[in-house]
Amino acid sequence: MFFKTKYPYRLLTPGPVPLHPEVQQVLAEPMIHHRTPEFERCLRSVCERLKDTFSTQEPVFIHASTGTGAMESAIVNTLSPGDKVLCIISGKFGERWAQMCKIFGIEVVAHNVEWGHAVKSEDISRILRAQPDIKAVFTQACETSTATVHPIRELSTLVRERSDTILIVDGITAVGAMELDMDQWGIDVVIGGSQKAFMLPTGLSFIAVSHKARRFIERSRLPKFYFDLKLEQKAMAKGETHFSTVVPLIRALDVSLNFLTGEAKKRTLSRIEKLAAATRAAAPALGLSVYSKAPSPSVTALVVPEGIDSQKLRDHIEEKYNMTLMGGQDQLKGKILRIGHLGYITNDDMFALFDILYQSLHDFEYGGLKKSGREEAQAILKKHLAK
Amino acid sequence: MFFKTKYPYRLLTPGPVPLHPEVQQVLAEPMIHHRTPEFERCLRSVCERLKDTFSTQEPVFIHASTGTGAMESAIVNTLSPGDKVLCIISGKFGERWAQMCKIFGIEVVAHNVEWGHAVKSEDISRILRAQPDIKAVFTQACETSTATVHPIRELSTLVRERSDTILIVDGITAVGAMELDMDQWGIDVVIGGSQKAFMLPTGLSFIAVSHKARRFIERSRLPKFYFDLKLEQKAMAKGETHFSTVVPLIRALDVSLNFLTGEAKKRTLSRIEKLAAATRAAAPALGLSVYSKAPSPSVTALVVPEGIDSQKLRDHIEEKYNMTLMGGQDQLKGKILRIGHLGYITNDDMFALFDILYQSLHDFEYGGLKKSGREEAQAILKKHLAK
Repeated sequence: MFFKTKYPYRLLTPGPVPLHPEVQQVLAEPMIHHRTPEFERCLRSVCERLKDTFSTQEPVFIHASTGTGAMESAIVNTLSPGDKVLCIISGKFGERWAQMCKIFGIEVVAHNVEWGHAVKSEDISRILRAQPDIKAVFTQACETSTATVHPIRELSTLVRERSDTILIVDGITAVGAMELDMDQWGIDVVIGGSQKAFMLPTGLSFIAVSHKARRFIERSRLPKFYFDLKLEQKAMAKGETHFSTVVPLIRALDVSLNFLTGEAKKRTLSRIEKLAAATRAAAPALGLSVYSKAPSPSVTALVVPEGIDSQKLRDHIEEKYNMTLMGGQDQLKGKILRIGHLGYITNDDMFALFDILYQSLHDFEYGGLKKSGREEAQAILKKHLAK
Repeated sequence: MFFKTKYPYRLLTPGPVPLHPEVQQVLAEPMIHHRTPEFERCLRSVCERLKDTFSTQEPVFIHASTGTGAMESAIVNTLSPGDKVLCIISGKFGERWAQMCKIFGIEVVAHNVEWGHAVKSEDISRILRAQPDIKAVFTQACETSTATVHPIRELSTLVRERSDTILIVDGITAVGAMELDMDQWGIDVVIGGSQKAFMLPTGLSFIAVSHKARRFIERSRLPKFYFDLKLEQKAMAKGETHFSTVVPLIRALDVSLNFLTGEAKKRTLSRIEKLAAATRAAAPALGLSVYSKAPSPSVTALVVPEGIDSQKLRDHIEEKYNMTLMGGQDQLKGKILRIGHLGYITNDDMFALFDILYQSLHDFEYGGLKKSGREEAQAILKKHLAK
């Protein structure tokens, strides 16, 4: 643990997230080779079950990379130099889509949305009608930097009626954490990352690809090798990954998918929503307000009171109380705290979180802090978590 | 384990390799965030110590990918479309260099070397003199598919005197397993992978870059994002990786580097060489001969007797004896067995290996098998391993 304190270490960021004890155990197992019957059985099981988690019958490919690798994969596999795309930019990760597309020679139509707000689908409808040559719409399902969700279902409806446009959704903090019904809604590409709802360390990324998107893959002319999905598709037919893969993470995924498939998936989603709702409800008791106008279940951004620097607050919380939260980035630097609701988070973690928030605001001599705030917050949490 | 046999599972492939027990333990530790003082200390330690392992004072960058990711990184960071390069092709991984370069729009001069043979540096000298516009020479230090080493020191001498050519070495099965003196010899780019001498699972790759190569990086015009070393260089200055990274593998690397730095590195190299020498010496007692004319310390390729299919033999060994070895690829399919010498391999594993090889050849009714072969092989091993 970080510091010699009486506080046990708690990780409450929107990824990486606390690991389930069963996952930890699997990570420590002796190594096996990735070209063995045992591992191939495990990989087949994982690939099959990932479909349930991604709400799709389409293939879900696995890269040995961070989520950004899957973002690159989505671009280089579906597009060609000079293609025009629309990027919805409402935070750091929307900016990343646009930045990456430009690097790969894609013409970007940037649609900027005020941070903390969901995109308006009528704006997207208007842009798409005006520019029929837009080949792809890039968005986040949840923009992690602002803890805001976009109306993916509405966006899908707009895109699915166009034969030559696909919807590419960064679902890194959404898959396994909120409803994102790929096949039903008609999303073409959904990407995910192992260190989020999958409750694993960073190291695997996922990319689910619709039939329509596979046509784009066939004609894409951007150079690729490490992220080449055509190579992965051939390998998948043989029950393999094309390159070697992160064996312990695949085996651990086979465990964590127990919580992200079938009936258990519903329970996980509602647990995550419950943690988010409890956080939103308890925060005002400490003078903290919810930043987003369309708050996400996977992560909550709380605005800290005027006069307090949220970055200093989070550092203090880490140093004194042994708990890691995230601050804000760019225009939100110093202004917000971000609290994750994914992974193996207990009720005890939640009570500790608000206790530590109270203590820390007290340490910062926040004048607006109500003496009763501590008990109020705990009571609100208790009520919400008991539901 | 794979099968219900009385044999404990043993992994003797040239990667992934058996994990050191201390490494396994670290992999199971609770997750911490990658932007925390504790992790940054660990990352700084790892980056500093990797230099010792890579025999360099130059920066060693870390990607969250397999070794192939680092191969792609070496290409897309140093070259521009239309550049001409020389690829030394003496097996599957040399072929991969050439294939990847072509995909990224690089003009490839292919120098094919008979499989199992080391490249002749005079041939490379001749090609380089005839084609002064060659920007890079790509080679393997150890071609894993044939278990053969190339004379990297000689190649370095040829390339270092040219101001506008760099030597790019795939050291995936070489770094930490054999002498590869990057700075002293003047190698420009060396890549490595976590699942080899580093005794970790697959999931991290490494790329060490000389001052000369960094000039190439400055002018490279190939598009890149996930593998962009300029982004990594900026992050490294702050003690970070640009994207999130595989936290448990970095922490485990900090343990495994205890065996790959300082005096321990010498002991590890000599241990690996001892295992290889013992394997080469004992094999003939069972009618197996060494395939390579320039055998590697990290992996040994053994030719199986006429009439036996090595692929069937390796499957039999896995199914009946719970031990994973590798067979041959392409022109060597069915002809060789490949045995790895990297990772946490005990003397007991070596005795078991030859016992199981004997038993399996017996199961296959190999007529040339001497009854005394079993004891002879064990005696030879014993002599070599006692050294």
